[in-house]
Amino acid sequence: MSYGKLIEYAEAAPEARAVMDDIKAARGVPDVNNAWKAMARHPAVMRRFWERAKAVMQPGALDAPTKELIYLAVSIANGCHYCSASHTALAKKKGATEEQLAEMVEIVGLALEGNSYASFYGQDIDEALKG
Amino acid sequence: MSYGKLIEYAEAAPEARAVMDDIKAARGVPDVNNAWKAMARHPAVMRRFWERAKAVMQPGALDAPTKELIYLAVSIANGCHYCSASHTALAKKKGATEEQLAEMVEIVGLALEGNSYASFYGQDIDEALKG
Amino acid sequence: MSYGKLIEYAEAAPEARAVMDDIKAARGVPDVNNAWKAMARHPAVMRRFWERAKAVMQPGALDAPTKELIYLAVSIANGCHYCSASHTALAKKKGATEEQLAEMVEIVGLALEGNSYASFYGQDIDEALKG
Amino acid sequence: MSYGKLIEYAEAAPEARAVMDDIKAARGVPDVNNAWKAMARHPAVMRRFWERAKAVMQPGALDAPTKELIYLAVSIANGCHYCSASHTALAKKKGATEEQLAEMVEIVGLALEGNSYASFYGQDIDEALKG
Amino acid sequence: MSYGKLIEYAEAAPEARAVMDDIKAARGVPDVNNAWKAMARHPAVMRRFWERAKAVMQPGALDAPTKELIYLAVSIANGCHYCSASHTALAKKKGATEEQLAEMVEIVGLALEGNSYASFYGQDIDEALKG
Amino acid sequence: MSYGKLIEYAEAAPEARAVMDDIKAARGVPDVNNAWKAMARHPAVMRRFWERAKAVMQPGALDAPTKELIYLAVSIANGCHYCSASHTALAKKKGATEEQLAEMVEIVGLALEGNSYASFYGQDIDEALKG
Repeated sequence: MSYGKLIEYAEAAPEARAVMDDIKAARGVPDVNNAWKAMARHPAVMRRFWERAKAVMQPGALDAPTKELIYLAVSIANGCHYCSASHTALAKKKGATEEQLAEMVEIVGLALEGNSYASFYGQDIDEALKG
Repeated sequence: MSYGKLIEYAEAAPEARAVMDDIKAARGVPDVNNAWKAMARHPAVMRRFWERAKAVMQPGALDAPTKELIYLAVSIANGCHYCSASHTALAKKKGATEEQLAEMVEIVGLALEGNSYASFYGQDIDEALKG
Repeated sequence: MSYGKLIEYAEAAPEARAVMDDIKAARGVPDVNNAWKAMARHPAVMRRFWERAKAVMQPGALDAPTKELIYLAVSIANGCHYCSASHTALAKKKGATEEQLAEMVEIVGLALEGNSYASFYGQDIDEALKG
Repeated sequence: MSYGKLIEYAEAAPEARAVMDDIKAARGVPDVNNAWKAMARHPAVMRRFWERAKAVMQPGALDAPTKELIYLAVSIANGCHYCSASHTALAKKKGATEEQLAEMVEIVGLALEGNSYASFYGQDIDEALKG
Repeated sequence: MSYGKLIEYAEAAPEARAVMDDIKAARGVPDVNNAWKAMARHPAVMRRFWERAKAVMQPGALDAPTKELIYLAVSIANGCHYCSASHTALAKKKGATEEQLAEMVEIVGLALEGNSYASFYGQDIDEALKG
Repeated sequence: MSYGKLIEYAEAAPEARAVMDDIKAARGVPDVNNAWKAMARHPAVMRRFWERAKAVMQPGALDAPTKELIYLAVSIANGCHYCSASHTALAKKKGATEEQLAEMVEIVGLALEGNSYASFYGQDIDEALKG
């Protein structure tokens, strides 16, 4: 659902343009996604989000495709269509397979089901879990 | 937040008792968590959820700790305290490390932040993402 | 999780006290729940919510227990423990059975699962549904 | 918001095609909705969801239109547009009236309002509710 | 994502038409938004929501643009695109600046991140906060 | 709901201790809240969240109490009890009045109600809002 202006590179503020340059280099793409062009309306917000995303999503104790699957799982649970579409693409680009995506989405559904049972049945946290 | 009766093994319906036996065997624990004792109020719901959980969470294209991290990430995003506590314990038992948990929770926070920007900035899905 | 002051009848503002009287009469109970005693910190909010609740929850095209099951289903999906506990009690008082509660909670889990698939698979609304 | 490929019957895997046949027979429709054509990308996920949906949504202690209203209420609260559109259609097909839909949606709004007050005012669960 | 019929003024029920007249006068606009035309399918729901919105959103202890920013923040966190688009417009009309919008959206992202940490780290409420 | 270890100052890692020192100085309190003691399990996550919180919550185009009200509104909508309790306290400390809190919580309830109607009635974004 489009609303609000998309800021193209040519008309972007210098701070936003620098972020666009960095994204294009990091991802090896000729242009950034609409999400970034929209966020370029507020260059400081855009820059801070991009810096944070780069830091959090780089491989560490978890590898890159696993990180993308976790990001995607949260976005699906949260009902964000744009985020689901763009992070499915990123997850595949970083090596996630169709079989892994299928298993991930069933875990999301199961977790939401299980969470609702926890809400309804209303149990206290077990002593053994408090550790 | 405790409310509703916990059903102990001795007083559980046969269908619930069979599930409890199966959980104890599968997890190598002497007793099931409160969540299951509460759900034993509705043995058919309990059985169907357990069967589904077993099937979805078994290792496949994704390994067991990764599956638990995804389940946990959704539960955190969803604000379910009981689920966070119990699936943190399960994730550790299946091999997830403290470093992996720390990275996972930052991805959850980043995803929620990114989802909120997608909501606000309101962009259409890029042609390249429609595949 | 308790925080914030509970306002007992004796110390409540006249506007809050009138709402408490009305709730006690409508529900045939000697005292109101903690939720109302907490909300009595802001008598005008309390009064407006009670008036709206009375109007919306009275039997109409849907009968009283069905209305309570719908309210409860939303509260479970939303992860509100207090709301789950209090509206389970109200639903039973108005005639909902344990079997109906068990079926309702499975529908909540199914709907959350189905909603997550709709997010992930990203389909347009069918022409036939646009009516 | 469309993204991802829709799998038509002719190109679907045998497992997905069998589900499509079953849906068409169960609902008396010439073709399945986009949601199912998208989910056909992962035939095993699709089959398990359809089997579960059939079992959970069949009339029992709650009749069919009441079950659809509960499913719909959760989908609305959850902000799932596709789910709202498709389950409004299903609810009407199974006998829900426009007046019942109007009452249901006001209960959803009321429940969300009430849930937010429970969050803010922060009360403990009453002894009488712990049952 | 459009579905369901939009009711134009000429074909609206008298109760819905009266609400439309009131909205047009209150906002100084020649026609109401699609949201109201869709809600006109249920005139009583529409009227009650409009009356409540007018009362809650009028300037009081908080001024009009601050109230709109709060409404908008909740809508963003909730992932409601239509609501984000329409309440961004309302907030600007009532005097909110682009800088205020940028700060607001970062607070939403921060709050969602912080909420997820509260879920994961699972702390009790401090005595000092119980007031 | 408590679970997981609270890390007191004496046993905290140097990185976590430095954050605790900074929070105590910034807020003029003798000790940090439980939320920070729990987050001290992962010092790097804690430090990054604190730095981000400081930057986002400092007065700018919006003043400090307004920023706290927005943070609080999102936390209420999101059902986070700990967050509601702690940010109510922060909002009051920064100058928010009880009357402003009462108005804010009604806006949250109204926004959630309005969001649910947008989901159900399913309208497209108006041309005038696309700007």
